[in-house]
Amino acid sequence: MEYKFSERVKNLKPSAIREIFKYAADPTVISLSAGNPSPETFPTKEIAEISAKLLANNPISALQYSFTEGYTPLRNRLKKYMKETHNIGRDLDELVITSGAQQVMDLSTKALCNEGDVIICESPSFIGSLNSFRSYNVRLHGVKMDSDGMNIEELERAIQAEPNARFIYTIPNFQNPTGITMSLEKRKAVYELAKKYSIMILEDNPYGDLRFEGEYIPPIKSFDEDGLVIYAGTFSKVLSPGMRVGYVIAPSPVVQKIIVCKQGSDVHTNIWSQIIADEFMGNYDFDAHLQMLRSVYREKAKFTMDLLDKHLMPKVTYNKIGGGLFIWCHLPEGTDMLDFCKQAVLRKVCVVPGNAFLINEAEHCQAFRINYSTPTNEQLEKGIVLLGELAKDIIK
Amino acid sequence: MEYKFSERVKNLKPSAIREIFKYAADPTVISLSAGNPSPETFPTKEIAEISAKLLANNPISALQYSFTEGYTPLRNRLKKYMKETHNIGRDLDELVITSGAQQVMDLSTKALCNEGDVIICESPSFIGSLNSFRSYNVRLHGVKMDSDGMNIEELERAIQAEPNARFIYTIPNFQNPTGITMSLEKRKAVYELAKKYSIMILEDNPYGDLRFEGEYIPPIKSFDEDGLVIYAGTFSKVLSPGMRVGYVIAPSPVVQKIIVCKQGSDVHTNIWSQIIADEFMGNYDFDAHLQMLRSVYREKAKFTMDLLDKHLMPKVTYNKIGGGLFIWCHLPEGTDMLDFCKQAVLRKVCVVPGNAFLINEAEHCQAFRINYSTPTNEQLEKGIVLLGELAKDIIK
Repeated sequence: MEYKFSERVKNLKPSAIREIFKYAADPTVISLSAGNPSPETFPTKEIAEISAKLLANNPISALQYSFTEGYTPLRNRLKKYMKETHNIGRDLDELVITSGAQQVMDLSTKALCNEGDVIICESPSFIGSLNSFRSYNVRLHGVKMDSDGMNIEELERAIQAEPNARFIYTIPNFQNPTGITMSLEKRKAVYELAKKYSIMILEDNPYGDLRFEGEYIPPIKSFDEDGLVIYAGTFSKVLSPGMRVGYVIAPSPVVQKIIVCKQGSDVHTNIWSQIIADEFMGNYDFDAHLQMLRSVYREKAKFTMDLLDKHLMPKVTYNKIGGGLFIWCHLPEGTDMLDFCKQAVLRKVCVVPGNAFLINEAEHCQAFRINYSTPTNEQLEKGIVLLGELAKDIIK
Repeated sequence: MEYKFSERVKNLKPSAIREIFKYAADPTVISLSAGNPSPETFPTKEIAEISAKLLANNPISALQYSFTEGYTPLRNRLKKYMKETHNIGRDLDELVITSGAQQVMDLSTKALCNEGDVIICESPSFIGSLNSFRSYNVRLHGVKMDSDGMNIEELERAIQAEPNARFIYTIPNFQNPTGITMSLEKRKAVYELAKKYSIMILEDNPYGDLRFEGEYIPPIKSFDEDGLVIYAGTFSKVLSPGMRVGYVIAPSPVVQKIIVCKQGSDVHTNIWSQIIADEFMGNYDFDAHLQMLRSVYREKAKFTMDLLDKHLMPKVTYNKIGGGLFIWCHLPEGTDMLDFCKQAVLRKVCVVPGNAFLINEAEHCQAFRINYSTPTNEQLEKGIVLLGELAKDIIK
């Protein structure tokens, strides 16, 4: 049998990161290439408690079919919480639960983009989202990043050049992979451009709650009086990624289409984990949990940046971070970045080559991404020392 | 803001069944319209036990990110089990875990069909799958059902008439909504036609394990030496639907594309529920559980059919079932089926009008679907008595 695949998936490849994970699976290799939240932040005791009570007292509610829109108490709780803490949600909006925020990218693209349409993205950006967009055969138009977020002039030129652009995709807080946070001014500017050109915004905010330094900046969705913004939230970084619970807050007509698509995609999100999330937010001190989590990341990030200062600077530079999970490191011009990453693997430490995150992987890139949340401190130290030795050896 | 949706979702509507569920939400209405497995079949005690042990001893494994392909021990267990019990799986095949079998429909369509391509379906068929197909802007070509499955002559004519047909969708066991089981001869004939015309088969088997009468018939996938069949399996009817754990067994090149699409769709399936499914199959008596479940359904189905015999026959006839969750009832010609269903709701009993399951909802249809697994026996009795009174009143 010769298999004929659809145009949209014909050229899809597993993400480059997955290929790197194969090296990382070697237990002798120190992986700085993952994107997992730190397991010490998972409220395992509380989850075990909630689950035990739930499965003893009301197991059928956790095991029977449920609504596509999500578990009603969790939806109501999130609506209230997001309004109160982030001023997100207007009468025109609706909230539904998704199977991770990834499903928001998937279903938004499915609902809004025809094949050949365009999505405007930060470049570099999160490869999982980019590949989700690509899987609908849309074209990606990258906009370069300044240190305070998307370059606004280039963004406007992109919108003007792309009449079939359907939305602007952005991760405004501690972007994956660059760690960049978009300034308030730029958030407003992006919103105004979207309004001016009647184009939507897909705001992906997995790391907003992981700010351990600096001042809170309101999400773009908090300005949204006009129904322009699709907001993707998730419990993956604040509770547990394995649960696969995310949510979307967006104008009702868009959410209605997302619901119909979700029905055909997975019927509904695992209901046990929706109830766990709801009970955790309702019956435990969610704020204190976030404080705990921030202090774990603050300490771990400082530990990592101290190591980078000591072992890699100034040959390899990096952007200081105030939150999120990733640090973006730069090799000097003249150093072959892909070769550096390959040599690193040979020395048993694994990082992600920066071009994996570009809209066009063939573009020139001197950066690589490291993750500090998954490895232990011991692994971080060992890995960064190895990278430092490599830098010493091959950077002139 | 005026929202512009993609061509593929523009005309998608929430399924007609969902609209009916709105009536069914009225607690004074007896719903015979659902499709939920009977909650008394859920092994709640065992699931609570497994979950408690898991969250006490190895919580991180249940809460951290996992592989897109699924939990490795579950994949290996299912491969072995499906080979031993159903002769499913050859060297050319691969198995991955999905978020319910629904995701198999979704991702198979995404991987194999361009917009405008054709899927050949039984008519009537499961509306959740039909809507999933429709959400990729494919065209559905219905083939009528005989009492032993798809009409083979019509199927061959359909294949000949549709050069862009990409696969044949079938539910060979206790089909939803008709309850029909495809004979062994027809399974072989469908496979031979697929081979002759190089077209794939999507075999959806949610109800195969729910046979409580008659002889086991091997799945089409068990003949598949040629890599033609995508097999969709699920734990929804044998363990718990709220968990959303299904699986696909298909030729490796197809599975590779499904994996890439799944990565962009929900990264991976909820991992807690995958581990629960694995431990349940491994550490408890899965066969005894299936026996228990069959005896629950045997008894409940007999109870229901006795009521139908007493209160609806011969004015309303039905197909006797030997498994599955649904009974397909026929009104005599001359009776307005949609009006019958509407009158039923007014009398506080809810069934699903048969045309909801047709490829073309506007086609003539005298049938309606009832479900016997969700209601209690008391509700079944009350509901069927009400339907009987209605039939007496409006069928001449």
